Amino acid sequence: MSVTDELLANNARYTESFTGPLPLPPSKHVAVVACMDARINVYGVLGLNEGEAHVIRNAGGVVTEDEVRSLAISQRLLGTEEIILIHHTDCGMLTFTDDEFKKSIQEDVGVKPSWAAEAFSDLETDVRQSIARIKNSPFVPKKDHIRGFVFDVATGKLNEVV
Amino acid sequence: MSVTDELLANNARYTESFTGPLPLPPSKHVAVVACMDARINVYGVLGLNEGEAHVIRNAGGVVTEDEVRSLAISQRLLGTEEIILIHHTDCGMLTFTDDEFKKSIQEDVGVKPSWAAEAFSDLETDVRQSIARIKNSPFVPKKDHIRGFVFDVATGKLNEVV
Repeated sequence: MSVTDELLANNARYTESFTGPLPLPPSKHVAVVACMDARINVYGVLGLNEGEAHVIRNAGGVVTEDEVRSLAISQRLLGTEEIILIHHTDCGMLTFTDDEFKKSIQEDVGVKPSWAAEAFSDLETDVRQSIARIKNSPFVPKKDHIRGFVFDVATGKLNEVV
Repeated sequence: MSVTDELLANNARYTESFTGPLPLPPSKHVAVVACMDARINVYGVLGLNEGEAHVIRNAGGVVTEDEVRSLAISQRLLGTEEIILIHHTDCGMLTFTDDEFKKSIQEDVGVKPSWAAEAFSDLETDVRQSIARIKNSPFVPKKDHIRGFVFDVATGKLNEVV
């Protein structure tokens, strides 16, 4: 049995106590942008319930064009007004550089990615960079309530980047 | 008090029962790509615990360059081998077209996005499109275990797209 099959068995149990459907727009009018890291259970970390917040995640929790796209849709079509950015301690993005990652791919498959890997060397600096990218975008209209945090994988605590 | 402040109070409670740190690589060697929709609590839907799976999310659960980047990092650096794609019923991406969304932004701020909004008109077709994009990428090495689902927001059930 694959892991996917195992998780589908979990899903069958989930449906037994599921009550829906909830409305489409997030009831708390908030969008979260977080790293894909397995240790960040966004619903647990923030005490979110189903239906309350958009959750956008990728490697690093960085803001690239696709996060701008998602935030533009979130704010313009579905009414979110606050943004919470979450990076975290012990992040994999701290362990390599763009150059070496892209070179390893080129050596493996003969093609070098045209995109940035978005590795970074300092967590707080990169949270500020992600905020700066949102503030610099004409496509995300609501920028008055953007806050950035570093999640501590040892304690579960969100520490604000100021 | 902002919603963010309210969620930070939830975080303080989360830390009280938190035990960490867990290892960086996902213990179940799986990456999930899901829509950002507020009603999809990925950890609940799949019965995932902290530390088990990468979770990548955006508007639609579509596969763009940034999801390829995240999956490349997930597989090449952190050992994941299976991919689960999740779209869902009542998705906001079914309610507009790229052309009209981008035109509305152009009318609002004078700048038309150079990116695709990635709206779609059929859920199952778009799940297959996302799988096709992964299979077509030279940067994601492990493609033998990719499965796509539509989450039913009324029942909580994952229905496989075949």
